Parts: sequence; C-alpha cells; structure tokens
Amino acid sequence: MKAPALAHHHHLLSATRIPRTNLRPRTATPTSTIRMSLQENAPSLAVVGVTGAVGQEFLSVLSDRGFPYRSIKMLASKRSAGKHLTFEDNDYVIEELTADSFDGIDIALFSAGGSISKQFGPIAVDRGSIVVDNSSAFRMDENVPLVIPEVNPDAMKHIKLGSGKGALIANPNCSTIICLMAATPLHRCAKVVRMVVSTYQAASGAGAAAMEELELQTREVLEGKQPTCKIFKQQYAFNLFSHNAPVLPNGYNEEEMKLVKETRKIWNDMNVKVTATCIRVPVMRAHAESVNLQFENPLDEDKARDILKNAPGVVVIDERPSNNFPTPLEVSNKDDVAVGRIRRDVSQDGNFGLDIFVCGDQIRKGAALNAIQIAEMLL
Amino acid sequence: MKAPALAHHHHLLSATRIPRTNLRPRTATPTSTIRMSLQENAPSLAVVGVTGAVGQEFLSVLSDRGFPYRSIKMLASKRSAGKHLTFEDNDYVIEELTADSFDGIDIALFSAGGSISKQFGPIAVDRGSIVVDNSSAFRMDENVPLVIPEVNPDAMKHIKLGSGKGALIANPNCSTIICLMAATPLHRCAKVVRMVVSTYQAASGAGAAAMEELELQTREVLEGKQPTCKIFKQQYAFNLFSHNAPVLPNGYNEEEMKLVKETRKIWNDMNVKVTATCIRVPVMRAHAESVNLQFENPLDEDKARDILKNAPGVVVIDERPSNNFPTPLEVSNKDDVAVGRIRRDVSQDGNFGLDIFVCGDQIRKGAALNAIQIAEMLL
Repeated sequence: MKAPALAHHHHLLSATRIPRTNLRPRTATPTSTIRMSLQENAPSLAVVGVTGAVGQEFLSVLSDRGFPYRSIKMLASKRSAGKHLTFEDNDYVIEELTADSFDGIDIALFSAGGSISKQFGPIAVDRGSIVVDNSSAFRMDENVPLVIPEVNPDAMKHIKLGSGKGALIANPNCSTIICLMAATPLHRCAKVVRMVVSTYQAASGAGAAAMEELELQTREVLEGKQPTCKIFKQQYAFNLFSHNAPVLPNGYNEEEMKLVKETRKIWNDMNVKVTATCIRVPVMRAHAESVNLQFENPLDEDKARDILKNAPGVVVIDERPSNNFPTPLEVSNKDDVAVGRIRRDVSQDGNFGLDIFVCGDQIRKGAALNAIQIAEMLL
Repeated sequence: MKAPALAHHHHLLSATRIPRTNLRPRTATPTSTIRMSLQENAPSLAVVGVTGAVGQEFLSVLSDRGFPYRSIKMLASKRSAGKHLTFEDNDYVIEELTADSFDGIDIALFSAGGSISKQFGPIAVDRGSIVVDNSSAFRMDENVPLVIPEVNPDAMKHIKLGSGKGALIANPNCSTIICLMAATPLHRCAKVVRMVVSTYQAASGAGAAAMEELELQTREVLEGKQPTCKIFKQQYAFNLFSHNAPVLPNGYNEEEMKLVKETRKIWNDMNVKVTATCIRVPVMRAHAESVNLQFENPLDEDKARDILKNAPGVVVIDERPSNNFPTPLEVSNKDDVAVGRIRRDVSQDGNFGLDIFVCGDQIRKGAALNAIQIAEMLL
C-alpha cells in the first residue's frame, strides 16, 4: 500500500517491536503496482476530517482494501485547507469543509467530531450523499442505522447507492465495536442476558494529539521533568485513569453509557443488561476489554472457543500453557479483533457464564475499518 | 523518616509528579529526631528478603510508624550477605538466611518468595518466632490465619507475642487486600453475593526487577530499539497483558484464583461467588481494580459512599463534575486505599448492585503495610 503522507504521529508505534503474530496480515500491495481504485463507474468519495488519526486511517484502509472510487475529496478545517497530501500516487489539495463540499459526492466518510457531523451530516444527506459517520452525533437516532457489518448488516439494507437519496449510517463507538465483535457470536448461540465490561482504552481514542501527549509525557517523566498535561488534566504516563468523558447524573461516564445503549440498539434487544467501567491506560492505539457474560442458555467454553474461531473478523489467541493471550500491541494495525482467556465463569452455576478478554485496534476496527466495511456494503 | 539505603530502583517513581491529593499523608519524622524504636522491652525483629521491593518497604513502614523493636536482623540470600544497610541511623550487615537465623527472634517478616517461606517459615515457628508471611505459601492452610487487620483481625486473636509459642500468619495477596479494603465495609452492610473483578496491576507485583524492566523497555521503545524482555516474555512498555501467573486447568491464572479463594477465607463465607480477570498494565507500583458487586440486601450508592468515607484505611475520591477519581499514581506511596466511581449498577434491578473503582499501593497496603499492621496487633 501507499500510505498517506500527512501525519507523522505514529513515530512511536512504528518504532515498537512487531510481535510474532497469528493474526491475518494486512493486504500488502507492492508500490510499483498501478492501483485500479480510480474507476469511472465507481463512487465519488469525500473524507471529512482527513488530517485526524481516523481520517488518515480511512485513507490507509481504502488503499489496503482496494476500495474503488471515481474521485476522492479531502476535507478538513480551514486550518488545514491548502495543504497537500499524497494518496495512491496522486497529489491532493486539502479543501475546507463547507456546505458545498458534497455536491456530486456519493459516499462521505466523516470523522471530525460530533459537532461537525451534526452541522454537515444533514447537509451532505440533502445533497444526496450517503454519510458514514464515525461520531456519536446520530448513533442513538432511531432513524439512523448503527452498524457493525459482521453483526447487524441488515440494519442498513434499505440504503442504496445510486438511488439519488442521501442517508446517514452511524459507526458505533470503538469500545462497543470491539466488545460486540467477540460477544455477538456467543450471543447468537446462547443469548447474552447480562454483560459486565471493564475497558483498558488506548490514547488514540482521544485523537492523534493524545497519542503525542502520552509519548511526550513519558519522555518527560523518564527525564525527571513535570509531564505536560494539555489533552488530559492529569499525568497519563505510567498511570491510568477513569475515561475522560463527562460523567452523567447516574454516575456513568458517556463512554460507558455508549456501551450500554449501543449494545441494545445493535442487538435490537432492549432487555440486554450491560454495565461498563471505562479506563484509559498508557497504550497507544488498541483497546482491551475484560468481558463477563451471563447467558440465557448454557454454552460451554469449548463450544464458545469454536464459535469464536469461526467468527468473521475474530481471531482466537488462547494458549494457556504458554500464557499467550491477546495484547493491544499484537492487534495494533491489524484488522481482526483478538479474543482469549475464554473460560467458564466460576462465579456462575453450570455453563451459564463465561469470562473473555478482547483486544482490537481502536483506530482500525474500532473506527476506520468498520466505517469502510459499511461503505463496502453499499457497493 | 530515614529511608533504607539499599535499593535505588525507585528513581522513576520519585521523578514522577506528586499529584494534588486528599489522601492522608505518611507520618513525616524530621531526620534530626532521635528515633525511639530501639527499646529494650520491645520485640526482636527479623526481615527476610530485606533487599527486595517489599523487604525495603518493610523497613520504610516500620520507620514511618515508629514500630518498636529491641533489635532487627536483616536477612537475605547468600548473594546479598555481607552488604551494609543503614536503617534509622544504624548500620546493619545483611546476614545470610539460615536455619539458625531465628534464635531469639520474636517476629519475623517474610517476603522472599513462596519456596523460602515453605522452607524457613516452619523453622522460624519451631524457634518460637511469629512469622508474618507475605508469600502465598500458607495462605490457604486452614491452620494459618489470613488477615487484613481492618477486615478480620479476630482470625489471629489466639496468637500472642511472648507466649513462647511460634505461629504463622499469612498476608493476603495484594489484589485481594486492595479489593477487600473497599468491598468489606459494603459486604458488612448488604452482604456481597457475587463480585466480578478486573484488575489493572502494576509492575511492582513482580518485584523490583520488573519495575526496572518497565523503565528500561520504555526508554528503549522511545529510542526505537527492541525492548529487553527478561522478567516478562513480551513487551510491557506501552502494552498490557494477561497476568503472568501460571494458568490453571480451569482457565483462571493463579493470581485470579487467589482473589476467588482468599476472599472466601477472609470473609469466612464459602458461598461468596467471585470471578476475576487479572491484567498487568504499564504502571509502576499501585494496582487498580474495577469491581462489580451484587448484594443480598439493597444498598444505595449514597449510603455506600458514606460507609466507605467512614471505613478505616479507605479514602473516597469520587468527584463526578470534575472527573476526579482514584488513580494508581495518586495512591503511590500512600497508606490508604482509594475508592471512587461509586454508582448504582444499571445492569441490576433496584439497589442490589454497585460498580466501584479501587486503587491501592501494591507494595505498601498490598504487602508491607498490611504485614506490619498484623505485627502491630501482636504488640
């Protein structure tokens, strides 16, 4: 693949050891190959928030997957407008996002925050674009499908490309996607009645600047200096803290309530009970989640492991003798969500409970990949 | 206090920012004060494993709390024997641990690993010493009390100093101590029937060398080098992984089963149901735990908060509007366990469930402080 040439904030991660892995590799395309993505009968695309961590990953994933497009418009704030960007051997000038940006755009990939989505999402729809929105702006809107392609593709089956009608499709929150990639195959078999989730969330969920702050703070602490706290109000290096999302009157923070509410919507099951505690840990770009499951019907751990081994987009890493289980580093820059520590919950009778540990790349399956898989379903 | 002068591995932590805190400060004793701990009618002490992270903390805590002693013997492996150590303005020569080390010792504080405890604990008891053992060797022995002084002091009330009879008292595992410091006051009020725990465990639990490895690896990764993996088999810097304890046939690792079994013993309740997922995070010396509680009797979150505010050894940090909750950094080098994120569990009906988030210094309350509080109960 030809990587996008704007962001340089992945320095630290690219410097980390690439671990031995049994995950499926990303599609590797020799740079000498002429890409066939520029196709006349393919959709015209727009990427909103192209300079952000997820925006950059949109481009990587489009390239990796050979997503076909007739044209691609790079949109960002006024601050970035006029800068150049190389994508798949073509030079692009970043344009300022305005109400006119969406004329003739078939698919618009949004990742520029909730307020931008609220303002420009409906405008794009009016112009006939199908918007795949990575923000939380429309997720709980009953008229907007909230989709994980492996989980509930039917929720968006009424939306058709080329019908001339615009539409909104929401990408779920990263923690929800990663959790449900593992929980859904088990839910289909034994029906999850209650789920207790504790997360270990990476810096990337707060954007590229948060990743930079974690790296900077770590250097500062190692040098005996005061850590710079701009994105987060407290030291992040060698520390962890309750997720920085605002806390609601019920004591849950918004990140936790996304897991509670989005699960109900995606599973179309208003009775599923979910509680979550969301914590930020000093990891760069992949989330981990400890998930305790209670089932309506019995499901033993061997069957659960088999189900997960056969689940699309899921890889099982569960080698007890060698203590080899999923880690955030191992899933970083990977498409698949990794599941391990699959075991019968000793605190529940019989086979009505399981504990699992899930890791997934927050920027990739937690955001950009899922959005582009949604776009692929439109083709 | 006069800090012990052997270990230098706390470099990184002392370099980290000391956060604003509402925790009770450690007792500060001006170094010019003549300490009164050396007392003729006080017990003779031995510290086994004095060069380790917990051994060093034993000395800090003894000094901080003005623990009275007639004499103190510094014991370690042959490798460290002959080295000098300054403690409370006195010079000590570290002696090799042998069967004869315990002649005339009233209280022996052990933290040199399970096999040393198994070999030398019974020898010390034979010589009339009361052994407070920080290893897992005797924790589940039905004849050995497993004690958190704030939780079950009565379990050791039959053991008397000066009776001439030796005895063993076990210090619980760090994760158990930290969890039960917060859960027990609630359990006394509403009876915990089930507990789902996910841990965020610091490097210190694996010893001083693990803390050094985390620091070294972090430097290496920031410099673009391969991280050195000696203590752990995989990259720890900017990563996290399932606790390195061996995995048992039921799929739980030993660390997790300690939480399950020790809770039953300490609460003297064979029916309490516990499940745990134990994860190591790149934090230096304090653990965090996400704890979901199910109660037999209703307990609302306001009452729970009041109970915890009045619990000995517990401090509540639960400021929702400012998103100020416990962090491992804030409790590092502190005695108290901090509890926050106290909220009604939305996945359970009525007031029969709570979620809480707990942080505690692994070396201090998780090990050395608890052991010395046990020893204090003998005075």
